[in-house]
Amino acid sequence: MQHFDSDYMEGAHPLILERMVGHNMVKTTGYGCDEICASARRRILEACGSPDSEVHFLVGGTQTNATVIKALLRPHEGVVAATTGHIAVHESGAIEASGHKVLTLPQHDGKLQAEEIDAYIEKFYGDESFEHMIFPGMVYLSQPTEYGTIYSLKELEAIAEVCRKWQIPLFVDGARLGYALSSDDADFTLKDLARLCDVFYIGGTKVGAMMGEAVVMRRGLCNRFFTIVKQQGALLAKGWMLGLQFDTLFTDDLYLKIARHAICEARRLREALEAKGYRSYSTSPTNQIFLRLTPEELAKVKQVTTYTEWDRLPDGDSVIRLATSWATKPEDIDALIEAL
Amino acid sequence: MQHFDSDYMEGAHPLILERMVGHNMVKTTGYGCDEICASARRRILEACGSPDSEVHFLVGGTQTNATVIKALLRPHEGVVAATTGHIAVHESGAIEASGHKVLTLPQHDGKLQAEEIDAYIEKFYGDESFEHMIFPGMVYLSQPTEYGTIYSLKELEAIAEVCRKWQIPLFVDGARLGYALSSDDADFTLKDLARLCDVFYIGGTKVGAMMGEAVVMRRGLCNRFFTIVKQQGALLAKGWMLGLQFDTLFTDDLYLKIARHAICEARRLREALEAKGYRSYSTSPTNQIFLRLTPEELAKVKQVTTYTEWDRLPDGDSVIRLATSWATKPEDIDALIEAL
Amino acid sequence: MQHFDSDYMEGAHPLILERMVGHNMVKTTGYGCDEICASARRRILEACGSPDSEVHFLVGGTQTNATVIKALLRPHEGVVAATTGHIAVHESGAIEASGHKVLTLPQHDGKLQAEEIDAYIEKFYGDESFEHMIFPGMVYLSQPTEYGTIYSLKELEAIAEVCRKWQIPLFVDGARLGYALSSDDADFTLKDLARLCDVFYIGGTKVGAMMGEAVVMRRGLCNRFFTIVKQQGALLAKGWMLGLQFDTLFTDDLYLKIARHAICEARRLREALEAKGYRSYSTSPTNQIFLRLTPEELAKVKQVTTYTEWDRLPDGDSVIRLATSWATKPEDIDALIEAL
Amino acid sequence: MQHFDSDYMEGAHPLILERMVGHNMVKTTGYGCDEICASARRRILEACGSPDSEVHFLVGGTQTNATVIKALLRPHEGVVAATTGHIAVHESGAIEASGHKVLTLPQHDGKLQAEEIDAYIEKFYGDESFEHMIFPGMVYLSQPTEYGTIYSLKELEAIAEVCRKWQIPLFVDGARLGYALSSDDADFTLKDLARLCDVFYIGGTKVGAMMGEAVVMRRGLCNRFFTIVKQQGALLAKGWMLGLQFDTLFTDDLYLKIARHAICEARRLREALEAKGYRSYSTSPTNQIFLRLTPEELAKVKQVTTYTEWDRLPDGDSVIRLATSWATKPEDIDALIEAL
Repeated sequence: MQHFDSDYMEGAHPLILERMVGHNMVKTTGYGCDEICASARRRILEACGSPDSEVHFLVGGTQTNATVIKALLRPHEGVVAATTGHIAVHESGAIEASGHKVLTLPQHDGKLQAEEIDAYIEKFYGDESFEHMIFPGMVYLSQPTEYGTIYSLKELEAIAEVCRKWQIPLFVDGARLGYALSSDDADFTLKDLARLCDVFYIGGTKVGAMMGEAVVMRRGLCNRFFTIVKQQGALLAKGWMLGLQFDTLFTDDLYLKIARHAICEARRLREALEAKGYRSYSTSPTNQIFLRLTPEELAKVKQVTTYTEWDRLPDGDSVIRLATSWATKPEDIDALIEAL
Repeated sequence: MQHFDSDYMEGAHPLILERMVGHNMVKTTGYGCDEICASARRRILEACGSPDSEVHFLVGGTQTNATVIKALLRPHEGVVAATTGHIAVHESGAIEASGHKVLTLPQHDGKLQAEEIDAYIEKFYGDESFEHMIFPGMVYLSQPTEYGTIYSLKELEAIAEVCRKWQIPLFVDGARLGYALSSDDADFTLKDLARLCDVFYIGGTKVGAMMGEAVVMRRGLCNRFFTIVKQQGALLAKGWMLGLQFDTLFTDDLYLKIARHAICEARRLREALEAKGYRSYSTSPTNQIFLRLTPEELAKVKQVTTYTEWDRLPDGDSVIRLATSWATKPEDIDALIEAL
Repeated sequence: MQHFDSDYMEGAHPLILERMVGHNMVKTTGYGCDEICASARRRILEACGSPDSEVHFLVGGTQTNATVIKALLRPHEGVVAATTGHIAVHESGAIEASGHKVLTLPQHDGKLQAEEIDAYIEKFYGDESFEHMIFPGMVYLSQPTEYGTIYSLKELEAIAEVCRKWQIPLFVDGARLGYALSSDDADFTLKDLARLCDVFYIGGTKVGAMMGEAVVMRRGLCNRFFTIVKQQGALLAKGWMLGLQFDTLFTDDLYLKIARHAICEARRLREALEAKGYRSYSTSPTNQIFLRLTPEELAKVKQVTTYTEWDRLPDGDSVIRLATSWATKPEDIDALIEAL
Repeated sequence: MQHFDSDYMEGAHPLILERMVGHNMVKTTGYGCDEICASARRRILEACGSPDSEVHFLVGGTQTNATVIKALLRPHEGVVAATTGHIAVHESGAIEASGHKVLTLPQHDGKLQAEEIDAYIEKFYGDESFEHMIFPGMVYLSQPTEYGTIYSLKELEAIAEVCRKWQIPLFVDGARLGYALSSDDADFTLKDLARLCDVFYIGGTKVGAMMGEAVVMRRGLCNRFFTIVKQQGALLAKGWMLGLQFDTLFTDDLYLKIARHAICEARRLREALEAKGYRSYSTSPTNQIFLRLTPEELAKVKQVTTYTEWDRLPDGDSVIRLATSWATKPEDIDALIEAL
């Protein structure tokens, strides 16, 4: 039996583990105020081309979303997201628990559209009756989206422009950012993202790290973010452990290289399955493959690999997700293709 | 320069790292629903003598305190703690951020007194005017306390009895629990704690683990705690990583053995310093040493080791903390004694 | 110029004002612990046929919704509501501000459907992946709805049955309850409501009172609700002022009688307008009339009365609301019909 | 039996009721956007000498405190208050429910001291370890205090200076402000208060109104306060009802005149009781009298009037509060003096 249900099933990249073992007994200052974290911050900011930004290391994705959103919104503000946005669906109400509403707009291949965001926000500046409603105080999007799709540079620029027009921050959830940056369709770079967003994060948990998300934030955007991170229970005592992982991932482009591997294996799998007659359900160019399966096909898949059930369609077909990762072994893909 | 400012300056016990490296590339189910976590839970519950309790793995202490307290309190309830309790002072308002007040009572060597808790709660059942105040809905204490002192079995039993009398849960913060259990003065066992508390946690971060706290909870105390953990951003995707650490720490009594080492080194240091004329500020029998230093003594200490500043007294003396850990090297203690 | 934009534009019923003036200088115990409130509670519970329930007086609708929902939900729970539900749209995120998500289901004439609620909740008991989502912990509906429609007895019974099946409370927002009870289509009574709901409120603000909502709650549903009301800032110091209003409204069926007046005037207006060729947009049998207007019709309406803009349709038509109230003067209706 | 337990036992000043009856059936725009509220705002701002400030009408004190504090603090900030401050003790955790900690400093006759506030805040700008603690983000004080004492102009200026030094807002709870302004010891005016505070409120509930508090806020201090008021459930549908009360109270100095009456009666009562040998417990120059009574004296008092129990002293004596109000009848004071 194979396992392709997600991209966080293995531990950390071997280079990370090796270095962790090497540093393990060195006494190191707590809470990310150490030299390794400082080095990781420098490498990340260099890769982002924004030497003046801040970098903060948090542990996981839901935690990072909740912390950033809480830190930036005022009480009467909510966060705009696609109906399929991770914060709208799969985070156990973490955003609402911090007191804020998720304001959902329709998704198009998992993505928000700039014009729809603009039209939505505009209403709040013309009509008094909207004073009884939650204000859009931030735009949240995932790159890649929950459907594995990616925003083009043009789409990102359009959304960033809307955010600037209305003076609200743009926040990009990059839990799987490496897979977007390394995808065949990517026409944007990390530098573009850093230029267009007010705050975003570079996901480690799903792209080579044991855990950890690196928040990159425009300097001056949020005073005392450190204390809010602590308040949210997101401040790791042994913060150097997060810094060490990102320092490694941002040395010699390791982050992009290992993400690229996942992309190639995913494409190989998708093409082979399509050649065998399986139907793709999404055009995801990243490491997640979405298949539309008849009950018979599903039964067959079930025998050879674990997967994530995504949806059940009215006609009885199922949509499932298979995910590769930085750690996927080519021989496992071979075997899976063979078995299906 | 030496470093004795805290007990979380090194990484993980070598046996943990070794096993982590070994398991690293094995695909494992997420969110703690794996076999390693299951094994860790069994070992912990066996050590606790409470096979029917639940075990949940979280990442850090502030996070665990906030999650447990939020999960158990109703809106009109607060948590009773000593004025020096960690949740009252050092957690950046994490409890208040979840909507609850910390109700402080005086500390005696860092500890709460059963009679004072009883008298405090009693007022809420006699006088209507207390309906305008936050109800005590839980008692929180740290074992060992923030001053390194420990509650005796008798003291714990008395507090547990008060909690049962008023039917509110007793929650013990065991971020440094190993150091309490292994201290010379300990007249209680893990089984006693499990019997007396409704919920407590076994600290990993400060006692041998890279990170991680194991919450032990009376079954039935809290429905859907898993979802609340997720909501608080405290659910680790690669949960097996926490299970693996506790599974190792609870094999062959590793947890207690390594904690015992810290105790012995701390005692050796304290006795040597007292012999040299330094004054202890607390009777801490655990791994934390509190010294009262004249400005001259402080200047000397500053040259040989880092430490944590604890308080400044009206007469100009300073109170500082030195902490040993499971990883403290005897030769470092020797050198420190020598240098002072 | 006439004013039909809402049903809270006048003050209090004259009988209330008269009594208020009479009692004004009598020294009275605070916070609703007085004899007038006690009398009002008795009258309300008698009208509800549930002598054992609790009655609490709050000041306004948003406040009442937020307080009841916060008081009853646990952290991992949200409240199920129609997409058009007042708490989902018009309360400035008051529910989210208390930490809870509003879980929206489709509306049908403003109403929830029992089968859809059932199917929604069922998913949370079969599939583990729902543990990462907010649980439905309560069903909220408005009677009448935001579209002026009303749930039939059969519909209420079906929803109540679903709630009992899953053991979650049913909460009915009765901000305009009088207008539902007095409508021509009402096949349910206050006693039915009290029997079927776990908690509901009888709206005063829009039905004869200056302000005030009377929450009727099954005894035992919520411990210490009084303190939570205080915490939400919803406890009026001079609580007798609320009790006095409800005591008056529930003497000699005043509440129903004055609501009936609004219904009759609304029907008269609707029928006259339809006779003149105006198109109704909803079948509301209560005091709110929804019209679909061409731009020309809208221009005409604008000249004779204020109204509430409800929606703008793709074809350029507008949907507006006109509302009568307990205080509507028949001659104003006459004049409005005449002018249109 | 007389009733002197509080100053909110009667309804509204007769002039208010009279005007309310007169306006009752006039259709008026909702939510405080009407002409009466506009007039009340003008009168208040004129009395404050700050034509550019904002005025918002809320319903009650706890609600106002919670709303203002929530609106102004960021997540990592708390509010500094005296240990005896109303928000610290008697508001059922309303501040914590909004996510914020109340940071208490010692009280001196119920008052905060400027130097202690300064010293407290200073620590947060020197020492990194304070980044793990809640930041002081606002100073809250009550004028008069919960002990009936008042801050002198000099004391207010000193505290305002500290607030400006650290750039945090000063918020004054004026639930009983009229009684401070009219007291014999008052050396400050409403204009002084408006000049020194960033935000304060003028209490109506306890000084002549049926209910209502008027928040006066420096323009630009808080964007979209209206929406936050709505979110807190503090926006009254028939907002004109609050405006009408303040418009009346701020016509011909009614607010100050009726408060003055309470002061005179309180002084008369206190002096008469002291002449009879009763001991004052506080030097309150306002409408609240605090007496220290032996058990025998208490027994006597209990037979002639209701009162508020304030404290029980170690020697068995009791501290009680008697309060006069704008509505206190001189003959009741006469009778009370006679009976004691």
